[in-house]
Amino acid sequence: MIGRLNHVAIAVKDLEKAASVYKNALGAKVGPPLKQPEHGVTVIFIELPNTKIELLEPLGENSPIAKFLEKAPDGGIHHVCYEVEDIMASRDQLRAQGARILGDGNPKIGAHGKPVLFLHPKDFCGTLVELEQV
Amino acid sequence: MIGRLNHVAIAVKDLEKAASVYKNALGAKVGPPLKQPEHGVTVIFIELPNTKIELLEPLGENSPIAKFLEKAPDGGIHHVCYEVEDIMASRDQLRAQGARILGDGNPKIGAHGKPVLFLHPKDFCGTLVELEQV
Repeated sequence: MIGRLNHVAIAVKDLEKAASVYKNALGAKVGPPLKQPEHGVTVIFIELPNTKIELLEPLGENSPIAKFLEKAPDGGIHHVCYEVEDIMASRDQLRAQGARILGDGNPKIGAHGKPVLFLHPKDFCGTLVELEQV
Repeated sequence: MIGRLNHVAIAVKDLEKAASVYKNALGAKVGPPLKQPEHGVTVIFIELPNTKIELLEPLGENSPIAKFLEKAPDGGIHHVCYEVEDIMASRDQLRAQGARILGDGNPKIGAHGKPVLFLHPKDFCGTLVELEQV
């Protein structure tokens, strides 16, 4: 079912500082900050030769990463995103095996303009998993 | 400096169960368990089209992931590994910028038989970063 690792998302309190770490210390290709108010985050994409790192900073009142950063004030890896071909078929297959889908179980349009779902960390090795249809 | 994302490492208490999640629920290509007593872990590699996931289970008395799993009993993402061309040059460059290298600062031979270093999470967005010379 899963294909490529689309990205690893790292939540941080200070996006500018985190971008500087990746640009100046690690010498990576770092994009500009992109505000995504509909997702409650500002995002910077870091392009690696084979995948992406997404740096996420909370945006607005009810950011989905605010609680995570309360527990991890230095920041940390928030989720991994795997690509799937058919997100509805993937969802149904996972549900049939007892895996829990977060939210109402219907795909939303994600940060890349494509349908995404999040899977319950307790069913996936303690890891928040995003599925993105590509 | 950094090149490809070599792998994402996920620490788990029960490797067989975790492998089943990736094989049966997520339909990924899952390898056999490999005991690495010199690293205090048993590893299963999951091959994705563009990178790898490494499932890690503690092995022996002083496993480096034992403490992590005390705090995260369901498991969780333990580190990310970026490839570098010259690990000594990378180390010196990072040190010159004030970043902390874990251990004695000398590369060790990692799980893939290549020189690796680990960088201090506090200097890298709360993320444990492994550098591997490829």
